[in-house]
Amino acid sequence: LTFDLGSGTVSDLGERALIARITARLPLAPWVLVGPGDDAALFQPDPRMAEALTTDAFVEGVHFDRRFCPPDAIGHKALAINLSDLAAMGASPRAALLSLILPGDFPISDLDAMLDGMLSLAARHRVAVVGGNIARSPAPRDGLGPAPLMIDVTATGSVAPRRVLTRAGAQPGDDVYVTGTIGAGAVGLHALLEATGSRPLIGVGREATGWADAQARYLRPEPRVRAGLMLSRNRAAGACVDLSDGLADGVRQIAAASGVGLVIDASVLPIDETAARWYAARQSDALDAVLAGGDDYELLFTSRRAHRGRLQEARRAMGGLPITRIGAVTRDREIVLHTAGGPRELPQGFEHFR
Amino acid sequence: LTFDLGSGTVSDLGERALIARITARLPLAPWVLVGPGDDAALFQPDPRMAEALTTDAFVEGVHFDRRFCPPDAIGHKALAINLSDLAAMGASPRAALLSLILPGDFPISDLDAMLDGMLSLAARHRVAVVGGNIARSPAPRDGLGPAPLMIDVTATGSVAPRRVLTRAGAQPGDDVYVTGTIGAGAVGLHALLEATGSRPLIGVGREATGWADAQARYLRPEPRVRAGLMLSRNRAAGACVDLSDGLADGVRQIAAASGVGLVIDASVLPIDETAARWYAARQSDALDAVLAGGDDYELLFTSRRAHRGRLQEARRAMGGLPITRIGAVTRDREIVLHTAGGPRELPQGFEHFR
Repeated sequence: LTFDLGSGTVSDLGERALIARITARLPLAPWVLVGPGDDAALFQPDPRMAEALTTDAFVEGVHFDRRFCPPDAIGHKALAINLSDLAAMGASPRAALLSLILPGDFPISDLDAMLDGMLSLAARHRVAVVGGNIARSPAPRDGLGPAPLMIDVTATGSVAPRRVLTRAGAQPGDDVYVTGTIGAGAVGLHALLEATGSRPLIGVGREATGWADAQARYLRPEPRVRAGLMLSRNRAAGACVDLSDGLADGVRQIAAASGVGLVIDASVLPIDETAARWYAARQSDALDAVLAGGDDYELLFTSRRAHRGRLQEARRAMGGLPITRIGAVTRDREIVLHTAGGPRELPQGFEHFR
Repeated sequence: LTFDLGSGTVSDLGERALIARITARLPLAPWVLVGPGDDAALFQPDPRMAEALTTDAFVEGVHFDRRFCPPDAIGHKALAINLSDLAAMGASPRAALLSLILPGDFPISDLDAMLDGMLSLAARHRVAVVGGNIARSPAPRDGLGPAPLMIDVTATGSVAPRRVLTRAGAQPGDDVYVTGTIGAGAVGLHALLEATGSRPLIGVGREATGWADAQARYLRPEPRVRAGLMLSRNRAAGACVDLSDGLADGVRQIAAASGVGLVIDASVLPIDETAARWYAARQSDALDAVLAGGDDYELLFTSRRAHRGRLQEARRAMGGLPITRIGAVTRDREIVLHTAGGPRELPQGFEHFR
């Protein structure tokens, strides 16, 4: 593969094209089971086991806004988005590294609160924060900066090689499921934006204080670590992905990686009740918003019909987390959304640089 | 341990106090062999082996300057600083993750060149870049940004638990050694700053173009991966640390972690020839600058005198890399620098937030 060294900028290409450009250049070693493109990478330090490895940067002004994200929520979420990636691989989280870039005027009390949020989530999932690094944000100069707060967490977890959940494991005839409810993450962000008057995305009223449930889902998402483990442990799931970039994106990822199609039934989607009320109060259609909206850290997975017993077993071990069948895997590679008004296209997910 | 939630900022505390504040809060799990504070963390996914894990952010305006660092050097160095940390643990590098935060107007040709630099170093050390993530730098708003280019690399490597090289392995009576030569990294930076007219640190003349050797050492440092492996393989070394923050800092790190003192002989320090010429041309004392200057990615290590045979063996396998005995480990916990003019204190190393 060669690349034309054009004169364009990264904004001209867009995020997915950039990722494709980079991954096309990465040679894989024999000890790598899963390379770039899944929720986490998998490599084998030892033939009997695999280590999942993932990193996700969390950047002020891009992924969060200090004007309405309290520091403990920033710390919580920076780790949660990485644990969610491990969960989607069926890996048991083990260790995390913390890379911090702090503005020089960042208050120590905020640093402590940020650690509170991160370490209480780490303790609940028995993740050891084993190291990292810390650097000052660059001071403003020559039109650069002041720079944002940045938190880059790397997480690693273990999984037996034959139990790994990738995006590529879907087969025609499988059922498609989603854990929990969807849509609350995006509504929580909208509510926070309205309450603080920053760039309201849906500009009706300033009644955000009533939407505490959704705000909590946005600020402190619960990674589905146990669900991922239970689905991998008895091999109940075929393919699995987390919904950090929205359901529409997750559906496309599984379809593309598995070489299959997916039919989703809009009428059974487990839309969060607060989210439904939010859109109803604005006479706005919830469906497209819920499908496109990211920040839902649920798991989307497929399961063979012959494995319904295994799925029941896994479900019992998940402690009351709802699981909803929302569609099926098809042989032809189309993605179809069935609605009362007929079949519809899925909206696009979030993309950087666009 | 409790922390007073004072009203100060992170700049009031300084980097080392910040790191101490964070690490004091990190509970360690049974599968963690080495937690925060060494070159890399070590955990055991499996009782028979250990995985070293390290992350180092590389931030424009703090760690590099795009005005005089070509993109391929940025990519090379972002990986090299992490491989150097693995080398200092005696670990064999396996996989790396790449977390990129790119300004929207970053040229695609620069991205390609950055990958060239990183991937050619990765290929030479058989490191698989297995994933990562990419995000746009935040657009300027409300006095924030434009944000710098940021590259956060995480690297992992394998080492047998009994062969791990930590900072804590020095014992009284050991000899102290350093690989290669020191001082060229800092001089390379000075030369580049002078050549481009940016904040000259030693303000004499603009003759930087003649210092190509030192510039190359600064821009494209060679991590001592093979040396670290050889020193761990036959257990020739006791303690080991890389010199990313300078020799003075490395000496202090080993002394503190091992609970020993170190006596260093200034007259035998392997000061890089170009660096020596640079300081001589400026009638400036090289010694303090060389001791304090970072960006030397050499290994500082201790070795028992009874293990001189092992060290000879390791040295033969390093392919011509010089190794110099520069001092000894003492029981009393003082750090002493012997010079022709009598004993001297070591200068401080680089610290963020100061």
